[in-house]
Amino acid sequence: MAETGATSGISGLDLHLELTGTRVRAALEQALRDAVRSGRLQPGVRLPSSRALAADLGIGRNAVTDAYGQLIAEGWLVARPGSGTRVASRVVQEPASERSAPLETAARYDLSVGTPDLSHFPRAAWLRAARQALSTAPDTALGYGAIQGRNELREALAGYLSRVRGVRTSADRIVICAGAAQALGLLYRALRGAGGHTLAVEEVGEPSHRRFAREAGLGLQLLAVDDEGARVDQLGAGARETNADAVLLTPAHQFPLGAALGPERRAAVVRWAVDTDALVIEDDYDGEFRFDRQPVGALQDLAPEHVAYVGTASKALAPGLRLAWLALPAELVDPIVELKSELDLASSSFDQLTLGQFIAGGAYDRHVRQSRIAYRRRRDQLMAKLAPFADQVRVAGLAAGLHAVIELPPQAPSDAVVALAAERELIVEPFAGYEATGPPSRRHNAIVVGYGTPAEHTFAATIALLGDVLGHFLDV
Amino acid sequence: MAETGATSGISGLDLHLELTGTRVRAALEQALRDAVRSGRLQPGVRLPSSRALAADLGIGRNAVTDAYGQLIAEGWLVARPGSGTRVASRVVQEPASERSAPLETAARYDLSVGTPDLSHFPRAAWLRAARQALSTAPDTALGYGAIQGRNELREALAGYLSRVRGVRTSADRIVICAGAAQALGLLYRALRGAGGHTLAVEEVGEPSHRRFAREAGLGLQLLAVDDEGARVDQLGAGARETNADAVLLTPAHQFPLGAALGPERRAAVVRWAVDTDALVIEDDYDGEFRFDRQPVGALQDLAPEHVAYVGTASKALAPGLRLAWLALPAELVDPIVELKSELDLASSSFDQLTLGQFIAGGAYDRHVRQSRIAYRRRRDQLMAKLAPFADQVRVAGLAAGLHAVIELPPQAPSDAVVALAAERELIVEPFAGYEATGPPSRRHNAIVVGYGTPAEHTFAATIALLGDVLGHFLDV
Repeated sequence: MAETGATSGISGLDLHLELTGTRVRAALEQALRDAVRSGRLQPGVRLPSSRALAADLGIGRNAVTDAYGQLIAEGWLVARPGSGTRVASRVVQEPASERSAPLETAARYDLSVGTPDLSHFPRAAWLRAARQALSTAPDTALGYGAIQGRNELREALAGYLSRVRGVRTSADRIVICAGAAQALGLLYRALRGAGGHTLAVEEVGEPSHRRFAREAGLGLQLLAVDDEGARVDQLGAGARETNADAVLLTPAHQFPLGAALGPERRAAVVRWAVDTDALVIEDDYDGEFRFDRQPVGALQDLAPEHVAYVGTASKALAPGLRLAWLALPAELVDPIVELKSELDLASSSFDQLTLGQFIAGGAYDRHVRQSRIAYRRRRDQLMAKLAPFADQVRVAGLAAGLHAVIELPPQAPSDAVVALAAERELIVEPFAGYEATGPPSRRHNAIVVGYGTPAEHTFAATIALLGDVLGHFLDV
Repeated sequence: MAETGATSGISGLDLHLELTGTRVRAALEQALRDAVRSGRLQPGVRLPSSRALAADLGIGRNAVTDAYGQLIAEGWLVARPGSGTRVASRVVQEPASERSAPLETAARYDLSVGTPDLSHFPRAAWLRAARQALSTAPDTALGYGAIQGRNELREALAGYLSRVRGVRTSADRIVICAGAAQALGLLYRALRGAGGHTLAVEEVGEPSHRRFAREAGLGLQLLAVDDEGARVDQLGAGARETNADAVLLTPAHQFPLGAALGPERRAAVVRWAVDTDALVIEDDYDGEFRFDRQPVGALQDLAPEHVAYVGTASKALAPGLRLAWLALPAELVDPIVELKSELDLASSSFDQLTLGQFIAGGAYDRHVRQSRIAYRRRRDQLMAKLAPFADQVRVAGLAAGLHAVIELPPQAPSDAVVALAAERELIVEPFAGYEATGPPSRRHNAIVVGYGTPAEHTFAATIALLGDVLGHFLDV
């Protein structure tokens, strides 16, 4: 490729072009585009004829007419009969200066709630499953069309949920969602769509679940929570018109307090749902992680036509997958699929195929078992670290899951504990963030610690730091 | 493991248990659960004492008390002081009989619109990119937190869009969405949220785009479409109060008619947007596939603060990825990210990391180039097949994209053509499906053929069949 350095004065403007071999036309085009964009060529300015410019630059006339044609097609230039080629009278706007990209800084010591140990994600096994899945998937699996979710995954989940969580369902009752937040959002919208007004929720729980319900147009009824979970007797027993249309519960492991819903209450809430034709939404966010006994089976099993079961890959695998699943009463499947189609048509086939393979091939069970052992060990280490304060703090929720609630005595106000921790680069969360009731009725002086969050190699240092921070307030 | 076949009469019920080694307790638990679930043990029935049942079955009493305890925790049984252990008074419901899973039958000869040749998806290259991406991604990439999209992908896209489509943007202006439908849905909701009422759309276009706009609460203004694309002069020039708040256009390749928006119109619509403080939504669904000249650059380039650019991986790669991107005016980034967080918190990190690697490593460009060559060849084959009818049909939209519109003479009514094709297992679509105006004003007796859709080995047979079907109505 010969290189030509050519300069042309266009409308009094020195236009310097580095014109390289066969790319003469593209370079001219780019140079003109840049000149217009930057304002060096002002709107309305008339360009030289293609003949004149070609002579100026010592290039073929075709290259110039082609470049003009392209820029006319793109709206930079305008050609009017008798008026030649001019710069279009358009608005030049440069984007505002770049905002700095949000920094991804994991805190040095992180006990925030809701994320598993991401360093434990089974990357190699996941990639193996991806290769197997993508090697065998039919071409149609890569297309549109599976709003409800890939059948391969729904079949695998139906078996898994039945086997491990006691859920009574089948692939045709399962809808794959982009995370539990979307799954709940779909249920909220379906409730509203069916004329529902009120969702009962536990008075302590994930705040975004309450927020999204309000944004979906639902009013909230708060249920008290005690050592047996939600006080479902507060749901009332009247007709549906005077009651909540649905209740959102975390029966296996109340979030974040940790109680399992008592057996009488399990039966009572299902009876309530049947009697008032209401819906129980079972948020089974960490049902696989039970340390002290067999898993508490899913409530869904008691009345599959009145319970919408919500499960997620966010705790057992990774939130970044954005995969969750609903096991639905028959009559909810079509409305939910319809609503899902309005949000995103479907979730990623690729991740779904991989997760289906991951479950079907047994890798999911293996990973959950290993994780359970690892988290139980952490739980024990945390308990040992808190032992010196045993007479001053009460630790709740240790039987399961990836987090615990530490109830503090008055001399250790949770805000002060959180603040001191932050000073030392340790993230712990105040319990108050999970309470639906306002400050006056906040009962718990407590913090929540997500002991599943730290990477393995930082865990010991992280809970040592937690012990130091608590020791600052408590007597050892 | 010793195997024991044991039988016990519980409450007059013969309960046969296959009790295997250490799994005695689990087997008992499962047998009792099944008995309750199936109704063999009715609500209220009192169970034998643990001592009695243990003796009956010849197993340890602990196994029985543990099993009872578990089933109480799960709500199957209830224990009351003085009343022993009873079956809970709950409602047993079996799921309704399974619906048959929807069959995934690709038609034998498929010219439906909107899907690329999925057999051409670069599976091996994609898996390589996945391995590279997942091997190098930080742990935090697998967690929550990147609602706007993974930075790796947004950086790669900013470069790609600037280089290939002339889009002026940067990573901080890009939002990753779960497909173009979601991207548009977010824009519609942002418009409504800002008090907008009306969206102008091309009078022929993707019907779901109109439907979702109506569902988001927007009224539609229809713009006529001719050989230079949308008649943007119909947008009017009044204040925003009397005009549309936004216009949705397919400037590079009108969908489905195929015209590129004329240069004067490009300038005019941008001027309109600036003058009335309105938004242009640029749906660049197949901008990479231009056969006869350089790509028509993105309109967004003319006024980045007034154009929301929408691109997608669905045509160049696969719809099953559910990945699309918005390049936004600065002031829209935060509202869109906020709305996105309500839908699904974020799109899958895994697919995003892979696509970022796929683009950054040059595999995307290679695949697009190969695809363009393949689709151009198909386009030429289609033209050759239609040549005998050249005086009777007009074929539009052949300069770009993966589909063409065949305008038919009166003796070949589109409905009859579509029906005869269907009889022969060939899918073609009537043009009427894309028209926003009702039947009385439908101008086009035409069909739309997605020549990108068939797998390579079926393409020749597919267009041969199309020729046969047309030949049935037309003179050769």
